[in-house]
Amino acid sequence: MAPKKYVYFFGKGKAAGQGDMKDLLGGKGAGLAEMTNLGIRVPPGFTITTEACVEYSNNNETYPVGMWDQVLENLKKVEATMGLRFGDAENPLLVSVRSGAKVSMPGMMDTVLNVGLNDKSVLGLAKKSNNDRFAFDAYRRFITMFGSVVMGVDRTLFEEILQEKKDELRIKQDTDLNADVLKEMVTEYKKLVKKETGKDFPMDPVEQMMMAINAVFGSWNAKRAITYRKIHNLPHDMGTAANVVAMVFGNMGETSGTGVAFTRDPSSGERKFFGECLMNAQGEDVVAGIRTPFPIEDLQKIVPDAYKELVDIYQRLEKHYKDMLDIEFTIQEGALYMLQTRTGKRTAAAAIRIAVDMVEEGLIDKETAILRINPDQLDQLLHPMIDPDAKVTIVGRGLPASPGAAVGRAVFNAEDAERMSKEGERCVLVRMETSPEDIGGMYAAQGILTSRGGMTSHAAVVARGMGKPCVVGCSDIQVKEKEKYFKVNDQIIREGDYITLNGSTGDVIPGEVSLIKPKLSESFATMMKWVDKIRVLKVRTNADTPFDAQVARDFGAEGIGLCRTEHMFFEPHRIKAVREMILSDDIEDRKKALAKLLPFQKGDFTGIFRAMKGLPVTIRLLDPPLHEFLPHTDAEIDELSKDMGVPADRLMAKNKTLFEFNPMLGHRGCRLGITYPEIYEMQARAIFEAACELECEGIKVIPEVMIPLVGFSKELVILKEMVDRVAEEVMKAYKVKIKYQVGTMIELPRAALVADEIAKTAEFFSFGTNDLTQTTLGLSRDDAGKFLPFYIEKGIFDTDPFVSIDQEGVGQLVKMGIEKGRATRPNIKVGICGEHGGDPRSIDFCHRAGMDYVSCSPYRIPIARLAAAQAFIRNKKYDS
Amino acid sequence: MAPKKYVYFFGKGKAAGQGDMKDLLGGKGAGLAEMTNLGIRVPPGFTITTEACVEYSNNNETYPVGMWDQVLENLKKVEATMGLRFGDAENPLLVSVRSGAKVSMPGMMDTVLNVGLNDKSVLGLAKKSNNDRFAFDAYRRFITMFGSVVMGVDRTLFEEILQEKKDELRIKQDTDLNADVLKEMVTEYKKLVKKETGKDFPMDPVEQMMMAINAVFGSWNAKRAITYRKIHNLPHDMGTAANVVAMVFGNMGETSGTGVAFTRDPSSGERKFFGECLMNAQGEDVVAGIRTPFPIEDLQKIVPDAYKELVDIYQRLEKHYKDMLDIEFTIQEGALYMLQTRTGKRTAAAAIRIAVDMVEEGLIDKETAILRINPDQLDQLLHPMIDPDAKVTIVGRGLPASPGAAVGRAVFNAEDAERMSKEGERCVLVRMETSPEDIGGMYAAQGILTSRGGMTSHAAVVARGMGKPCVVGCSDIQVKEKEKYFKVNDQIIREGDYITLNGSTGDVIPGEVSLIKPKLSESFATMMKWVDKIRVLKVRTNADTPFDAQVARDFGAEGIGLCRTEHMFFEPHRIKAVREMILSDDIEDRKKALAKLLPFQKGDFTGIFRAMKGLPVTIRLLDPPLHEFLPHTDAEIDELSKDMGVPADRLMAKNKTLFEFNPMLGHRGCRLGITYPEIYEMQARAIFEAACELECEGIKVIPEVMIPLVGFSKELVILKEMVDRVAEEVMKAYKVKIKYQVGTMIELPRAALVADEIAKTAEFFSFGTNDLTQTTLGLSRDDAGKFLPFYIEKGIFDTDPFVSIDQEGVGQLVKMGIEKGRATRPNIKVGICGEHGGDPRSIDFCHRAGMDYVSCSPYRIPIARLAAAQAFIRNKKYDS
Repeated sequence: MAPKKYVYFFGKGKAAGQGDMKDLLGGKGAGLAEMTNLGIRVPPGFTITTEACVEYSNNNETYPVGMWDQVLENLKKVEATMGLRFGDAENPLLVSVRSGAKVSMPGMMDTVLNVGLNDKSVLGLAKKSNNDRFAFDAYRRFITMFGSVVMGVDRTLFEEILQEKKDELRIKQDTDLNADVLKEMVTEYKKLVKKETGKDFPMDPVEQMMMAINAVFGSWNAKRAITYRKIHNLPHDMGTAANVVAMVFGNMGETSGTGVAFTRDPSSGERKFFGECLMNAQGEDVVAGIRTPFPIEDLQKIVPDAYKELVDIYQRLEKHYKDMLDIEFTIQEGALYMLQTRTGKRTAAAAIRIAVDMVEEGLIDKETAILRINPDQLDQLLHPMIDPDAKVTIVGRGLPASPGAAVGRAVFNAEDAERMSKEGERCVLVRMETSPEDIGGMYAAQGILTSRGGMTSHAAVVARGMGKPCVVGCSDIQVKEKEKYFKVNDQIIREGDYITLNGSTGDVIPGEVSLIKPKLSESFATMMKWVDKIRVLKVRTNADTPFDAQVARDFGAEGIGLCRTEHMFFEPHRIKAVREMILSDDIEDRKKALAKLLPFQKGDFTGIFRAMKGLPVTIRLLDPPLHEFLPHTDAEIDELSKDMGVPADRLMAKNKTLFEFNPMLGHRGCRLGITYPEIYEMQARAIFEAACELECEGIKVIPEVMIPLVGFSKELVILKEMVDRVAEEVMKAYKVKIKYQVGTMIELPRAALVADEIAKTAEFFSFGTNDLTQTTLGLSRDDAGKFLPFYIEKGIFDTDPFVSIDQEGVGQLVKMGIEKGRATRPNIKVGICGEHGGDPRSIDFCHRAGMDYVSCSPYRIPIARLAAAQAFIRNKKYDS
Repeated sequence: MAPKKYVYFFGKGKAAGQGDMKDLLGGKGAGLAEMTNLGIRVPPGFTITTEACVEYSNNNETYPVGMWDQVLENLKKVEATMGLRFGDAENPLLVSVRSGAKVSMPGMMDTVLNVGLNDKSVLGLAKKSNNDRFAFDAYRRFITMFGSVVMGVDRTLFEEILQEKKDELRIKQDTDLNADVLKEMVTEYKKLVKKETGKDFPMDPVEQMMMAINAVFGSWNAKRAITYRKIHNLPHDMGTAANVVAMVFGNMGETSGTGVAFTRDPSSGERKFFGECLMNAQGEDVVAGIRTPFPIEDLQKIVPDAYKELVDIYQRLEKHYKDMLDIEFTIQEGALYMLQTRTGKRTAAAAIRIAVDMVEEGLIDKETAILRINPDQLDQLLHPMIDPDAKVTIVGRGLPASPGAAVGRAVFNAEDAERMSKEGERCVLVRMETSPEDIGGMYAAQGILTSRGGMTSHAAVVARGMGKPCVVGCSDIQVKEKEKYFKVNDQIIREGDYITLNGSTGDVIPGEVSLIKPKLSESFATMMKWVDKIRVLKVRTNADTPFDAQVARDFGAEGIGLCRTEHMFFEPHRIKAVREMILSDDIEDRKKALAKLLPFQKGDFTGIFRAMKGLPVTIRLLDPPLHEFLPHTDAEIDELSKDMGVPADRLMAKNKTLFEFNPMLGHRGCRLGITYPEIYEMQARAIFEAACELECEGIKVIPEVMIPLVGFSKELVILKEMVDRVAEEVMKAYKVKIKYQVGTMIELPRAALVADEIAKTAEFFSFGTNDLTQTTLGLSRDDAGKFLPFYIEKGIFDTDPFVSIDQEGVGQLVKMGIEKGRATRPNIKVGICGEHGGDPRSIDFCHRAGMDYVSCSPYRIPIARLAAAQAFIRNKKYDS
C-alpha cells in the first residue's frame, strides 16, 4: 500500500490542495494552495498536513511513515521551480517554515524564516543579491530566530549582544550595522548557541528544516497554545500544518517591501482597501514596531505596477472568497508575491456592515450574512463605551461580568448609592461582593465593581440582568467598605472620587473618562429585520421593572419571560412590611403585613403591564427563602430591632429558625406557597387587580402566572386552584375578563421527569436552567468557584455549565420535559428563562429542542434574536 | 338499566357476597358472607358496599340511586329470616350497624348496637326475653351509643347521669341497677339528647338505621380516621362498608356471653386456641374492662356444646382461610353465633412461627409463608428490648428513630460519652441534636436521645447505621447541654442518672429498666433459609468498622456495599492529623499530614477486610466537604488553636475560606479527589497495602474502590487512573495480585443521565439514593423538616421520600442509569447503598429495576433478605 499523502505541493500555478481543505492543510496552507490555483503569484512550497502533526504528537514525536520522503521529494520540486538549490553556495534556496492551524491562533505558534542559511549559502546569497550586508543580516536574523524558537536559547541573550554592538559603535538603528559587524555577530551568535545548548549551530540545511518542522509541530502542544485553546474553546486534537515556502525578500532594497492589508475597513466595515506597508523590510520588522509603516495607498507612488497588481488581486480574492480578507504580501525588487490570505477579523459594527453590503453587492445571500455575525460580539454595540480617543490609565483588571462602560463617583454601600443617585450624582458601587440587599444600590449605580466573585456571582448575574456594566473578582483592589475607600497598588480611591469601569474588558480606571453612546447603524437595523423574518424562536426578556421592560421592548423583546417578584421586596419602604410579615407568629398578623405590600406589588405590575401592553408577561411568584429578607450581621440586626421595635433576640431567634444548611434545596419556591398560601394569594391578587384596572382603561394585558420550584404535580394543582380562585374573585369585582395562564418553572430534575403529570395542570413550562443545572449537576453556583477552574483546566468540562447549557446532561432533562409535557398537552408553550436564554450556543439548543421562546436580560435581546435566526438556518437541513 | 348492586345479603346459609370481596364488602362484610356460605351460624344481615360510601362522600352525602331501596328490601329479608319485625312491639328485630373497611382500622370507625329500640319495641324485647331489666338496659345503652356516636352528644354527659344514679343508690356495678331505675334513666337520657341537640331522640327504627348508616359512612372522613390512614399509609379513597346485622344478645343471662379469640397464640405463634370471654355481657363490656374476662378454655365448663362447636368452627375457619384468625362470637342462651372473622394481628415472632408451622402442616407453601411476614416487623426481633414484665414510667415520647432499647447513665456531650464508656459505664447520649463531631460519642453510647430533629436527622440516620437505639425530636424534654441535665415535666435528670430509651416506640423512661436479649427462634432460622434460597437480590451492609462488619456478617450480609471512610477521621488522635491536612497551605505539608493518617486508615481496612474475608468490600473514598472536620464555635476554635499551636485567626480564616452556601452541592466527593489528589491517593494506598498484607497471610480480600459524586465521566477517568496506578505500585511492592474493581456512586441526576459514558470506566455502580433524592427533588434532607409535614398532610407525597424511594421521580433516573450502564457494559454490577437499601418497598423497586444487590445497615440485613425474597415472589409472574 502506498503511504498516505502527508505533503501537498503548490507552485507554478498549480497546487495539490485547495481552499476548502483547511482541516487538513490549515488556514495558511489552504489559502496558499487556493491562491496558487487562482494563478496568483505565490512563492512555491509545500504544506505538511495537520494529520501528520497529530500522528507525530501521538507517536512520541516520530513522523508518520512516508512523510519525510514526501518532504524531500517536494523540496526538490521547490528547488526546480525556483531554479535554486537548498543550501547551495552559489544559488541558494532559502525557505520559511511556518505553522498554520485550521483556526488562526495569533502569535501562539512558531515560525522560522530563512531556513537553509549556513556558512556556505550565506555567501551564495551575498553573491546573488550582490549585497553582503543583506546576506549577513539575514543570517544573523536566522540564527536568532532558529536559536530561540527551535533550540530554546533565551532570545534576550541575542538581543544583549546586538545592543552591546550598537552601544560599542554608538549606533541606534539595526540597519546601520555594516556587513563586517554582522559577520562578527554571526560568529558570536553561533558561540552563544554552543554555550547555551552544548551543540553546534546546525549547518546542514535539511537538518535545519527538520528541526524547524519539529518545532512547529511541537508548538501545538506548548503551554501557551493549550491555554489559548482553552480560553477560546478550541479542541486540542486538531494539530497544526507546517508550511515550507521558498523565501522571497522584502528587504532587498527600496523596491522591495512587505505589507498586510484588509480588503475592507476592519473597524467600520467601509468598502475600501485598508493596510500598511514597510519598504526594505521583512515581516518581523513590521511587528517589531521600530519603523512606522505607511498606509497602503502610498505604495502606488513607490511601486505602481505592484500596487495595481495587488489591488487587482485583493478584489479577485474577495470575490472568490465572498468575504472580507486579511492578506499578507512581499514585494521583491518590484515583483509582488502573496504570502497569505484569510478571513479578516473585524469589529461587530464592521461585521454587520460588511455582511449587509455584501448581500447588496450580490456576493452572499441573507442567510450567509446572518451566519457571519458572532452574536456575542453584538454586545459591543449595545452599551455605552469608552471614547476610543480618551487617554486612560488602567490600574486593575477584573472579570468582564457585564459589558459597557460606566463612570461615576465611588460609593461603598447600597444606601449611599441610592442617596447619591437621588441627589443627581452618577455613582459606581464598589463592594467586596454584593448580596440581595444591595439590589437597590446596584440599580441606582451606573456600574458595579467587586473584589470577589466570578462570572456567575450575585453581582455579575444581577448586573447582566439590569444591563449595568460590571467588573467582578478584581483582586487587584482592596475594598474597605466601612472605611469607604479602596486601595489599588498604592493609590487610594475614596468615596466621591470618580472612577470608570469597562465592563467589556474588566478594566478599572481612576477618574472620569468620557464615554460615547453607541449608535446603531442602518446596517444593524437591516440585519435585525432579516433576522426577525427568519427565526421561529420568539425572544422574551427577563425584567422586573417598568424601565427594564421598556428597554427590552425597544430592543425587540416579544414579551416578558421572567418577572421576578422578590426584587420588588427589597425597596426600603417595602422591606419593612416584608420583615413584619416574616416575623408574624400567626396568619392574621401575616395577612396584615401582606396587605401593606399589596398596593406596592400592584403598582409594580401596573407599570410593567403598561410597558408591555399587548405582549405576554410571565410573573413568577415569590421564590427565595424568607431568610434572605432578614439582616444577618449583629449591627444590621440591632438597627432593624430599633427600627421595628422588635427585640434583637427575637430577630436572632427568627434567623435561627429560618436557618438552612442548603438554602438552595430548602424552604423556597412553591414550598412557600404551600406553607404560607396567603403570600402567593396576595401576589395573585396584585397581579389580577393591576390587570383588571388596565383592562378597564382599554390596555390589553396578558398575564402568565408562574409557580416556581414545582417537583410534584400536586403542588401545582393546589396553587393553580388558588390562583384561579383569586382571578375569578378579582375579575368578578372589576367585571372584566382577562385571558391568563398558569404555568410552572421546570427547574428540578423531578419536574422534568414527571412533566407529563405536571402538564395536566400547567398551561406553560419555563425551564429554569440555572437551578436545573445546579440540581442536575449537584453543583452550587455560589460555591463552585473553588473547583471550577480545576475542572476547566483538566478538561472535565469545556465551558462553565452556568454560561452555556450542559447539553449532554441537563439538555437530556430539558428534552425529556418538553416531550413529556407535549405528550400530555400538545400545544403547551415552552420557554427558557435564566442566564442560558441569552447564550447563543444554548439558544441553538433551545431551537433544536423545540422551545417556543427564550427569555434573556434586556441588553441581550438583539443577541438572542440573531442567535435564534442562526439556529434556524444552521438546523433547517435536519428539519426538512 | 337496573341500578348497581349496593347491598349484599347474608343469612340462612347463603350469602350474596363471598370472602374474596373485601374491596367491595370490607373485611367484616366479606368475613360474614364467607362464614355464612360455609354454613356457620351467623346472624342474618346485609352489607352496604364501600362503593356506596365513596359515592355518598363524593355526592355531598347523598346515597347513590337505588341504594336505599335495596337496604329496605334486604331489611325485609332479615326480618323474614329472623321471624321478627323491625321496631315491633311484640317481636322486635334489633340490628347492629357497623363499619368495616377493606383494611382493619381498630377503634377508628363507628359502630352502633341495638338499633331499632324505641319506646314500643323495648316493651316487646322485655316481653320476649321475659326480662325487663335486660330490655331497658339495652335501651339505655342504645341511647348512649346512638346519642353520642350518631347525634354527637358528649358521651360523658350520659356517664354523669349514670354515675349520679349509682351514687344516689350507693351502687357500684352497672349490673346492680334495676329495671325501674333504668326506665327512669331512659327518660333522663332522652331529655338530655333533646337538650343537647334540640331534637327528639328518633323513635322511627328506619330513621334510626338511616342515621346510623350515615354516621358509619361519615366516620370514614372523621379527622381521627384520616390521621390514622396517613400514619399507616392507607389510601383515602377506599371508603368503608356498613354492615347491618340482626342483634343477638350475650347479655340474656348466664348461658349467654360474648368473646374474642385467636386461632393461635398471637404473641408466640404457638398452635393453641387463645382468647377471652365474658358471660352475660355485650361486646362493649369486654372493651370497657370493668369485669375481667376469663380464658376461653373455661367456656368448656359453662356451655360445653357451644364450646365444642366453637372449636370446630375455628379449626374449620383456619383450614379454610389458611391463616391465623381473630374471631368474635356471641352465645345467646347457649346458641353460638359468629360475628366476625379476620386475619389475626400477631407479633413478628408469632408471624414467623405460624408461617413456618403452617408450611409444615401443609396448609400453605413456602412462598405464601414468606409473603406473610411484614419485613419491618422483624426489627422487633433483632434488638434488645424492655422486659415486658418490667414496670416503667414513661415521661416523654419522641420519634422512634432506631429500634431496640438502651439503658445507661445520661451524658450530655460526646467526650463524656467516650470517657464514661472507657470507664466501663453504660451511657445514653442526650443532645439537642447531633453533628458529625458527635460520632465517637454516639458510638460509645448505648443509645441516643435528642430533643430536636426528625426521622432522617443526623442522629436518626447515624444511629440506624450503627444499630443503636435512638429517640429523636422528643420535644417533651429540655436539654441543657452545658449545664449537663435535662428537664422533663418537672423532673430533672442530671449527668450520671440512669435513663432507659425504647427506640422502637420513642419512649423515654427514667431509671434503669431491665432489658431482655432477643433470642432468634428455630422458625426464624428456617424462614431465613427459605428466604435466601428464593431471592436473587444480594444483600450487603453499610459498615465502617470491623465490629459493624462482623455484626452484619452474622446477620447474613454478603459483603459490604458502603464503607464510609470519613467516620474513621473523627477519632481523637486522627482528627488532629486531618485538621493539619486541611490547614496545610501547600501540597508538601498536606502530604506530611496525610502520611500520619495512612497507618490509621490501613488499620481500619485491615480489620474490615479480615471480618469480611472472602466477601467483597466497597470502600468509598472521602466524601464530605473539608469544613465538616473543623470546629465552628468560638470555644472549640480556641481549644483547637491552643492544642495545635495555630492562631485562632487562622482557623477562623480557614473556616471562612471553606464556608459554603450549599455544602450539599459544594466542594465534596470526587471534587476533593480532583483538587487534592493526594488525599484519595493516600486512601487508595491504605486500601491496597491492607489488602496485600492480608493476601500475604492467605486471607482473601475483594476490594472495590468507590468514587463518590461523579457527574462527568472524565472525573472518573482521572481518578480511576490514579487508583490503578497506586494499586499497581503497591501490588508490585508486595509481590501479590489482588482482584479489585473501581466503580462509582450514581448519586447525581447527571450521573444517571450519562451513565452510558460513565460505564465506559466504571466497573460497578452504586446508587446513592439519599443524595440522588436530594438533588432530583431539590430537597435538602436537613432542611425539609419545615415543610415536609405540610406535604404529607396535603397528600403531595404519600411517604417521606427519604424513607421510601420516590419511584415515580428518582426511580426513573435509577432505571435509566441501570439501562444506560448495561448498554455500555452489560455485566456491570449495580447496587444501592444509603437508607433506601433497608426499606422493603424500595427493595421491591430495586429488584424490579434489576439491581444485583442492596446494601443496608447491619440490623436491617434480615429485613432486606426477607424483602428481597418477597420482591422475587411478588414479581415473578412478570419475569417469566
